[in-house]
Amino acid sequence: MIEDIEKLDDIEAVFETALQKQDEQILTALVQQLPPAELARVIFAISKEDQLLLLEILGSEKIATIMTKISGLGSQVFLDNLSPDQSIPIIKLLPQDYQARLLRKIGGENAEIILDEIGPEESDKIRKRMSYPDTSAGALMITDYLAYPGHLKVGDVLDDLRQHGDKYSDYQIQYAYVVSESGKLIGVLRLRDLLMTSRAKTAGEIMVTDPLCVPATATLRDLKEFFSEHKFFGVPVVDETWNLVGVVRSEAVRETLNQNTNQIFLKFAGIVGGEELRSMPLIKRSSRRLSWLSINIVLNIVAASVIALYQDTLEKAIVLAVFLPIISDMSGCSGNQAVAVSIRELTLGLVRPRELLRVLGKEAAIGIVNGAILGALLGGVALLWKGNPYLGLVVGSALAANTFVAVGIGGLVPLILKGMRTDPALASGPLLTTITDMCGFFFVLSLASFLLPRLV
Amino acid sequence: MIEDIEKLDDIEAVFETALQKQDEQILTALVQQLPPAELARVIFAISKEDQLLLLEILGSEKIATIMTKISGLGSQVFLDNLSPDQSIPIIKLLPQDYQARLLRKIGGENAEIILDEIGPEESDKIRKRMSYPDTSAGALMITDYLAYPGHLKVGDVLDDLRQHGDKYSDYQIQYAYVVSESGKLIGVLRLRDLLMTSRAKTAGEIMVTDPLCVPATATLRDLKEFFSEHKFFGVPVVDETWNLVGVVRSEAVRETLNQNTNQIFLKFAGIVGGEELRSMPLIKRSSRRLSWLSINIVLNIVAASVIALYQDTLEKAIVLAVFLPIISDMSGCSGNQAVAVSIRELTLGLVRPRELLRVLGKEAAIGIVNGAILGALLGGVALLWKGNPYLGLVVGSALAANTFVAVGIGGLVPLILKGMRTDPALASGPLLTTITDMCGFFFVLSLASFLLPRLV
Repeated sequence: MIEDIEKLDDIEAVFETALQKQDEQILTALVQQLPPAELARVIFAISKEDQLLLLEILGSEKIATIMTKISGLGSQVFLDNLSPDQSIPIIKLLPQDYQARLLRKIGGENAEIILDEIGPEESDKIRKRMSYPDTSAGALMITDYLAYPGHLKVGDVLDDLRQHGDKYSDYQIQYAYVVSESGKLIGVLRLRDLLMTSRAKTAGEIMVTDPLCVPATATLRDLKEFFSEHKFFGVPVVDETWNLVGVVRSEAVRETLNQNTNQIFLKFAGIVGGEELRSMPLIKRSSRRLSWLSINIVLNIVAASVIALYQDTLEKAIVLAVFLPIISDMSGCSGNQAVAVSIRELTLGLVRPRELLRVLGKEAAIGIVNGAILGALLGGVALLWKGNPYLGLVVGSALAANTFVAVGIGGLVPLILKGMRTDPALASGPLLTTITDMCGFFFVLSLASFLLPRLV
Repeated sequence: MIEDIEKLDDIEAVFETALQKQDEQILTALVQQLPPAELARVIFAISKEDQLLLLEILGSEKIATIMTKISGLGSQVFLDNLSPDQSIPIIKLLPQDYQARLLRKIGGENAEIILDEIGPEESDKIRKRMSYPDTSAGALMITDYLAYPGHLKVGDVLDDLRQHGDKYSDYQIQYAYVVSESGKLIGVLRLRDLLMTSRAKTAGEIMVTDPLCVPATATLRDLKEFFSEHKFFGVPVVDETWNLVGVVRSEAVRETLNQNTNQIFLKFAGIVGGEELRSMPLIKRSSRRLSWLSINIVLNIVAASVIALYQDTLEKAIVLAVFLPIISDMSGCSGNQAVAVSIRELTLGLVRPRELLRVLGKEAAIGIVNGAILGALLGGVALLWKGNPYLGLVVGSALAANTFVAVGIGGLVPLILKGMRTDPALASGPLLTTITDMCGFFFVLSLASFLLPRLV
C-alpha cells in the first residue's frame, strides 16, 4: 500500500485516517516518501489539533526532518502552533542556519527562552549568526565546511577525506579551505588538485592563494553580483579579522532571491510583510491585510473628496457618475503596469533611483500612445451611448490625460520611494492610485463644469 | 583610470564618452571589469545607435561575452536591434542552451535563417533542444559533461581529468557519468571515490549503479521536486532510450523558477507575457500593455453600466457618486490580496485547483472580519460627513458585503482559472474587479433605492 503512495489521488484522506488511527508506521512512511511539496501541502491542510497529534505520534526528531524537508515553504507556521516546551526539542535538531532564521522570525522573549534552552556553546553561535543582517552572508552561510591548516600534508588531507567521507558528503562542497593557525583564510584547495599531487606536499603548497571571499556583512545584492560574476558553488565568508567563519552556497543566495521576488509580488498586492499562507492564524492574516487596507481607505476617501467639490456639476450631468469609477480604475491599471516595471528594473539593478528623467521619458511615450487609444475608446463609447460628442470629448480627453499622468507617476513613484530608502513594493500602489484618482476626478469634473451647457 | 572604474559614480558617462571617442581599450576594460548588473544597466541605457556602434568597435566575440555575462537580465533586447547579418555571428558564439533559448524567443523565419547559418551538426543539436518544451529538462540541460565508458580504468579516468583539467573546470560538475557502449546511462562516478581507489580498477567497478536521473521531458515542477528532495548540484538527463543527453544543474532550475516568479508578478500587474524592460521598443511595450488594458476597459464599461441602471436613485442622492469609486477600489484591493495569496499557494503547490471549499472557508472568515471593520469605517465617515445615519448604513453595509464577496471570489478565481488550465496571473485581476464592481455598485444603489426617502 505504502509503495503506491505517490499515485494516490487523495493523500490527505490517507494521512488523516492514519492520524485518527494513530498509525505511526504509515505516517512515518508518508513523511519519508512524499515529495516535499506534497508533504508541505498535507501538513498545511491539517488542523492545529492534528498537527499536535502528529507531533505526539512521530516525536520531535521526525518532525524536525519534516521541517527541514519543507523548509522553503514557511514551516514556521507549524511551530506557531506549538508551545515553547514542544518547539524547543524540535528547533534543537534543526541545522544552524535554519535555527537562526526561525529564531529571528519568532523574535523577542520566546526566542530568548529557546536560545537559553539550547545550551551556551550552540546558542552563542546562533546569536552571532542572528547578529548579522537578514539575508547577509553571515545569515545565509553554512558553518559545516572543510578547513585544513596549511602545513598539513596532502596525504593527511586525503586520509581525513577518506575517513570522514560519509559525513563530508553532506557538506555539498567542491572545495576545502586552508587556514592559518589563528583561523585566517589563506587559500583554497581544489579537490581536483588533490587528485594529481604527491601525498608528501603540504596543503599550503598546492592551494590557490589569495582566495576570493566575502565579508560576513556582504548583502544579498553583493552575493548576487558575486555569483553572477563567478560561477562558483560557494564562497568562503570571513569576519572582520579575516577569520574563516562559513561558506555561502550559491543555492542559498538563489533561494533567498526567489523568496524576495515572492515577497515583492505579495507586497505589491497589499500583503504586509510579503508573506501569507492560509494556514496562518486568522487574526494574523486578517490584521496584516487590514493594516494596508485601512491606510488605503483613508487615501481613497481623500481622493474621492474631489468629487464632492464638484457636486453641482455632477447633479446636472449625472451621467458622469458612470464614468468616474471607470477612469479611476483604468488609470490605476495603467499606472500599476508602470509601477511593476519600475520595481522589477530596480530589483534587477537596471535602473537607479536617481534616473527619474530617463524613466519619465520612457513612460511618457507609452502614456501618450496608450492614453490616446484608451481615451478614444472610452470617448467613442460615451458618444455612442448618449449621442453627445461633448460627453465623449470630456470623458475621452480626461482618460487620455490621466493615463499619461498615471503612467508617468507609476514609473517614478517606486524610484522616489527607493531613493528615500522605503520599500516600494507595498507603498507604490496606494500612493499612485490616490494621486491618479484625484487627478482623474479633477480632469473629468472640471472639464465637464467648463462644458456644462453642452453636456445637458 | 580603469582600475578605479567601479568607484566611478557615473559609469554611463565614461561609457558614452569612450563610445564617442571609439576608444576600444577603455570599452574593453569596462566590459571586462564591470559587474554583470552594472554592465547590463549601462547597455540597457544606451541608445540603439550606440549599441550598434559598440558592436562595430568591439566585434562579435566580445559582444557574445557581454551577452553571456548579462544573460539572466534579458539580453535578447540587444539582439532585437540587430539585423540577422549582425546577430548570427554573435549567436554562433553563445553556449548551446542559451542559443536554444534565444532562438525560441526569436522564433519563426528569423530563427530558421540563423539555424541554417550555424551549420548542420550544431543546428541539429539546437533543434533537438528546441523541440523540448520550454523550461523542461531538455531545454534547461547543459550538454558539456564528463562521461566515461564503464570498462575504462580509474587510472585512465584520472589521466583524462588531469589532461583536460582546465577545460573540465568550466563544466561546474561534481560527478562524472558512466555510460554503456550505446550511450545509455549506467552509473555515476563520484570524483571523491576516484581519490581512494586503485588506478587498476574500472569505472564500472567503482561507480554508483542505478543512478538517479530525469527524462528530457521532465517539467520544471518535476525538477523542483527532485532538487528539493535530493540536494544535488545536478541531475543527468536521459532520452526515451535511456541515453545520457545532458545534465540539468540545480542552479538552472532555481534561476528559471525565479524568472517564473518574476513573470507572475509582472503578469499580475497587467504586463502581457510577463516581461517588459524599458529598453524594449516602444511599440512592443505599448501594445503589450494595451492588449491587457483594452480588455479591462471593456469589462470596466460593462461593470459601470450597473450605475446607469440606477440613474434615478443617483440623481436624487448625488452624494452616493462620491462613494462609488471608493467601494469599487477598496473591494478590488481586498480581492486582489486574496488573488495574490491563491496564486502564491498554487505556485508552491500548497493548494490544488479543486480545493475550492477549503479556500472559500479560509477567505470567508477574513471577508467577514475585514468587511465589518472597513464597512464600519466608511459608514462612520459618511455619517460624520453628512450627519445622516442612513447614508452611513447604505455605504457601510455595501462595502462590508462587497468585501466579503471580493475576498471570496478573489480566493477562488485563480483556482478556477488554473483548473481550466488558464494562467491565473494575468486574468484573475480583471475578472475579479469586474464581478466586484458590479456587485458593489448593485449593493450601494439597490440599498439606496430602498432607503431613498431616508437619504434625501
